[in-house]
Amino acid sequence: MAAICWQWGEEMRLFGRLKQEDVVHERPELRKRSANFVTLTPVSFLARAAEFFGDRTAVVQGARRFTYREFYARAKRLAHALAKAGIRRGDTVAILAANCPALLEAHYAVPMLGAVLNPINIRLDAPLIAFCLEHGEAKLLLADREFHATIAPALDQLGGARPIVVDIADAETADAPLFGGVEYEDFIASGDPQSVHPGPEDEWDSICLLYTSGTTGNPKGAIYSHRGAYLGALANALTFKLDHESRYLWTLPMFHCSGWTFTWAVTAVAGTHVCLRKVEPKRIFDALIEHRITHMCGAPIVLNMLVHAPAEAKRPLPLRVKVATGGAAPPAVVIERMEAMGFEVLHLYGTTESYGPATYCPPFDAWQELPTDQRYAHMARQGVPNPVVEQLTVIDAKTLAPVPRDGATIGEIALAGNTLMKGYLKNETATDEAFAGGLYHSGDLAVWHADGTLDIKDRSKDIIISGGENISSLEVEEVLYRHPQVMEAAVVARPDPKWGETPCAFVTLKPTGGATTADDIMAFCRANMAHFKAPKTVVFGPLPKTATGKILKYELRAKAQAL
Amino acid sequence: MAAICWQWGEEMRLFGRLKQEDVVHERPELRKRSANFVTLTPVSFLARAAEFFGDRTAVVQGARRFTYREFYARAKRLAHALAKAGIRRGDTVAILAANCPALLEAHYAVPMLGAVLNPINIRLDAPLIAFCLEHGEAKLLLADREFHATIAPALDQLGGARPIVVDIADAETADAPLFGGVEYEDFIASGDPQSVHPGPEDEWDSICLLYTSGTTGNPKGAIYSHRGAYLGALANALTFKLDHESRYLWTLPMFHCSGWTFTWAVTAVAGTHVCLRKVEPKRIFDALIEHRITHMCGAPIVLNMLVHAPAEAKRPLPLRVKVATGGAAPPAVVIERMEAMGFEVLHLYGTTESYGPATYCPPFDAWQELPTDQRYAHMARQGVPNPVVEQLTVIDAKTLAPVPRDGATIGEIALAGNTLMKGYLKNETATDEAFAGGLYHSGDLAVWHADGTLDIKDRSKDIIISGGENISSLEVEEVLYRHPQVMEAAVVARPDPKWGETPCAFVTLKPTGGATTADDIMAFCRANMAHFKAPKTVVFGPLPKTATGKILKYELRAKAQAL
Repeated sequence: MAAICWQWGEEMRLFGRLKQEDVVHERPELRKRSANFVTLTPVSFLARAAEFFGDRTAVVQGARRFTYREFYARAKRLAHALAKAGIRRGDTVAILAANCPALLEAHYAVPMLGAVLNPINIRLDAPLIAFCLEHGEAKLLLADREFHATIAPALDQLGGARPIVVDIADAETADAPLFGGVEYEDFIASGDPQSVHPGPEDEWDSICLLYTSGTTGNPKGAIYSHRGAYLGALANALTFKLDHESRYLWTLPMFHCSGWTFTWAVTAVAGTHVCLRKVEPKRIFDALIEHRITHMCGAPIVLNMLVHAPAEAKRPLPLRVKVATGGAAPPAVVIERMEAMGFEVLHLYGTTESYGPATYCPPFDAWQELPTDQRYAHMARQGVPNPVVEQLTVIDAKTLAPVPRDGATIGEIALAGNTLMKGYLKNETATDEAFAGGLYHSGDLAVWHADGTLDIKDRSKDIIISGGENISSLEVEEVLYRHPQVMEAAVVARPDPKWGETPCAFVTLKPTGGATTADDIMAFCRANMAHFKAPKTVVFGPLPKTATGKILKYELRAKAQAL
Repeated sequence: MAAICWQWGEEMRLFGRLKQEDVVHERPELRKRSANFVTLTPVSFLARAAEFFGDRTAVVQGARRFTYREFYARAKRLAHALAKAGIRRGDTVAILAANCPALLEAHYAVPMLGAVLNPINIRLDAPLIAFCLEHGEAKLLLADREFHATIAPALDQLGGARPIVVDIADAETADAPLFGGVEYEDFIASGDPQSVHPGPEDEWDSICLLYTSGTTGNPKGAIYSHRGAYLGALANALTFKLDHESRYLWTLPMFHCSGWTFTWAVTAVAGTHVCLRKVEPKRIFDALIEHRITHMCGAPIVLNMLVHAPAEAKRPLPLRVKVATGGAAPPAVVIERMEAMGFEVLHLYGTTESYGPATYCPPFDAWQELPTDQRYAHMARQGVPNPVVEQLTVIDAKTLAPVPRDGATIGEIALAGNTLMKGYLKNETATDEAFAGGLYHSGDLAVWHADGTLDIKDRSKDIIISGGENISSLEVEEVLYRHPQVMEAAVVARPDPKWGETPCAFVTLKPTGGATTADDIMAFCRANMAHFKAPKTVVFGPLPKTATGKILKYELRAKAQAL
């Protein structure tokens, strides 16, 4: 298509084109028109930023800098190159990459074509990567050579047609072999930066495919819509207080729920994306200072890593950094130490199915007057739904009725709204189960406090039933984290002939701490909680984790069973 | 309907019910369901706030306080009472009231029924009120007895059926007679606070009808949709940085573009609405301190009123107050003095047709290093579109092509996106004109700077053409405001036999200032701008204004013509 100087307008009018059913309306003067009805898509955020914040820094990677004008041009080049490679509306484009510009650009270029982006978890093994590529029917794979060791065998395992492979081999990737196709920079150089693309036909069209890191069986592929991505990004920009001066450090993997929608939210406010290939304390502290970072996200495990960073890596922060954490509740001691280092912790909660964050724990001014332990306990709650979540409730698993707001009765968190996935790709049974009764069932167990805030007690499958009593593994972990020698802890059920199950603690000690025995740990727990809840077994050692820092409890459960 | 404790969920599922066309989709597992597709409506914001911020203060009026739980219950009572009074989907409910809880509540209760709220400008005269009621076909009028003097004759002038009238006679209203029906508190007391209402069937459904204060001819009735109101509120909450600790003072009339969508935006973040019946300096300063206000909006004229408030009304502010201003560009001297008093000024631009604010002038950190006059000049620009505006451009009136971004070429501001009105009620010709060529034509003339920011030079009809040269009335006014004795100024064209038109200045002097003559003023202008732009006529006296503080230039033009 010919280059036009008025690209944004042209494209938006294409994006916003009306379907026949939209044109008829009760009154002709009030009908939908291209000027007043536009399909919601996060691609609009990039178009706007390029047009009105064109000279501002959009993306940073090492010494590379792209302005918003360049970011948009690169995304258009990529879209055009993909189209020339045969990618059509509804096709899947997979990407397996660490946090880098290509992964961000793909979050705009693929949607520009009405195609579906499948960001793959970089920690998956070859059989799981092969599963994702086959199940998602990826036509093209953008492959970061850093992960050659798992991608190459995955491609060899594919039964059907091999996708087109484009290498990502930027200056920061490991010096592994290429896969043979074309390198990303050459690929996008073949695309036209002035090209115009159709975008989604409808805002319900699929934008992303995200496989959940299921703990058993094959992963399920959650599908996001343009509408949901757009609304989720706005909500996260609002609750995390992003603006045009925000400099966002990518400590959260972008492949994880599309970076909790921050791949789009940071662009919505025309802030700066600072890519970070490896989540290591020294790199993080250096980036915080060099780029005067204002915002970052990460699992509590990332926060804990910063708290326990070696002294030579730690550096004083030039300005207060907002850090949103989720995936597990941040232990009070982690919040306390992060605050002492100059971070401001915001707790978010959600699942892959809810586009990442569905709730946030709003810090109330009144909490400043509470004793610190109470304040941290409040901050560790999952809080309240963000403004675009339409329904959040804690329900009795059997009756589906909400549990009382007594801070004690445990129920399952259920959600509804436009930021819930469309469904699991090619899995109607699992989708119907997830949405049974008109609500999304999270599988997370929580109590509801009188003030409306949520407080997660466990995953459904992580609850320990000992002598008929429910024991929240999170509650035991919270006590373990308060032990001065404990760096990380996870508690699972261990089969017991007398009690049915008993709590079994897996503990990583601080490298600098003194000697601690299992008896010490058990005694500490009994001194700080009901005796029946205290672990009966304590195992020392490193904890197995997912790419996003979640502790793999199913592995620990297997270990506990084998003890 | 029976009372249920799970109202929000129940209602949302009703709101989100699917139309037949939505149910069919390419893949059954990815279809729209009540759990993942919900109609966008700002009513959701109130439901959420009541559920999760139920004990927080939602609305303040004098000594009255309503929590969010109470606010929602009152809105439901109102919806139920309206339904019992015969209000059905698509019906119009008018309200003519100063900023008070009833006007806020109506912004939720009427949409709950799928009916349309018509907030009427309190400064209209009886014939114009009668026009709105007849043209909008209001079935019911909520009438603030403060405005009995104009409402009573308006009702008498109605040709057709008189609407049901509900009096608003709260403790703050003037002691005028009632209209006869029922008082608002009695009316809502007859409604069920647990009632459940259908909401819109589709997010394109009409939510509000807002008559523009046209300067000639009959007002035009701009229609807003639920979708636009929802998105506009989110965008304004984001750009104005509202959160759950925000306390918003209602210095902007709620009837004006539904309070620039802040009637909904403040609720979206569960902030506090502080009602203010009269915009007077002492009341404003007292409210700022008593309620520890964080945010307020108003035309520059309101800011100017605070700047020039009598010494006994002014009080030091306990915390920095964000004040968003729009309707006209804030003169540099007004920004400067507001900042000196502890306000932080944000400039917004929009029209009734764009749901109020479409652009905002984001304060860049880099501006802090500019000389103050340059910084204020930047802050006075209209800035850039907010994140939900899909298109903003400055176009040549004839070719519709964008003008160059040279800061000099004047063009018309044009917009597109979901926050543009559906159309003008019963006026297809005017709607087609407004949306000619697929863009909304604002009628405002601006230049476009290289950095993408807008800078309004004039309304189309306010430009002065003297000897074939365009003179921006705003540019002349900006110079006049810098004169030490000038409090307010407006410049219009005066017919001239030689030049065609010449600039004519209407000036209000400061009460405390010394003597100033027309010659002084003209000499000051000539010393500060091109001679041909300086006013050839200066008239002293108060300026005629609309209810929202906009200067009525058409009255001044008539005066200038008659000089």
